[in-house]
Amino acid sequence: METFRLDERLARDSVLITRLGLCQMRLQNDQRWPWIVLVPQRNDKSELFELTPLDQALVTFETNQVASALKELTGATKINVGALGNIVRQLHVHIIARRQGDECWPGPIWGHGTAVPYADDDRHDLMKKLAGAL
Amino acid sequence: METFRLDERLARDSVLITRLGLCQMRLQNDQRWPWIVLVPQRNDKSELFELTPLDQALVTFETNQVASALKELTGATKINVGALGNIVRQLHVHIIARRQGDECWPGPIWGHGTAVPYADDDRHDLMKKLAGAL
Repeated sequence: METFRLDERLARDSVLITRLGLCQMRLQNDQRWPWIVLVPQRNDKSELFELTPLDQALVTFETNQVASALKELTGATKINVGALGNIVRQLHVHIIARRQGDECWPGPIWGHGTAVPYADDDRHDLMKKLAGAL
Repeated sequence: METFRLDERLARDSVLITRLGLCQMRLQNDQRWPWIVLVPQRNDKSELFELTPLDQALVTFETNQVASALKELTGATKINVGALGNIVRQLHVHIIARRQGDECWPGPIWGHGTAVPYADDDRHDLMKKLAGAL
C-alpha cells in the first residue's frame, strides 16, 4: 500500500490529534477559533467526489462525528464545515466552532487575518478534550 | 407528512432548478460564480449531524453528484463546498465553481461584495445545462 503523504502546509499549520478510520484529525494551531481539519489519508485527491463512494461515506461520518463533538464541547453557536482547497490542493475538510460575536462573525474565517498560535499547555489541553469527546 | 418550509432568504436569493432525492437544488442568482445551493427538505435542521444517518448519506451523495457535474460543466479550477449557516440557519450546502483569478480568488466567496443577478436568458440557459448535466 502506498504511503500517505501529508501536504507540507497542512503539516505546518496543524497538529495531529488522532487518526480516525479514514482521516487524520488535526487541530489548526490558531486559538481564535476551535478549528479541526480532517485529511482523508488518500493521495492525489483534491475533490470530495474523487473519492470512492465508501470513502465519501467515511468522510461524511467522520466529519459529522467531529462536528457534533466540537459543538458539544465548545457550546458553539454554529459549526462551519467546508472543503475549499483553493490554496492547499490536497483534499481536506474544515470543521470550525463559531460563536456569535467572534471576530469574523458572521463571515467565513478562511483567509481572515493571521493565526494566533496556542500556548503549548492550552493546545495540549484542548487536544486531549477533543480526543476524549469522540 | 409535514410540509417543508423554505427559509425566506434562500427563497429570495436563489431559484429552484430541480428536486433531487432529498434536497432542493437551487441556483444562487449571482452571475459572479456558478453557485448551487442544496437544501435538504427537512424542517428545523441547522447542522448536518442533526440529520438521520440515511439523510446524511443522501446529502453527501447529492452534493458530490452536483459538484462533479458543476466541475465538468464549467471547467472550474476548484469546487468549493461549504455548510456555514451563520446567517441563514436553515441547513443548506453551498457548491461553488471557482476559477483561478476570479474576483475573490483564492479567498472564500461568502459575504464578499454584492450579488450580480443573471439576465433572465442567461439564468434559464445555465439552469437547463445544470439540470441536464446530472
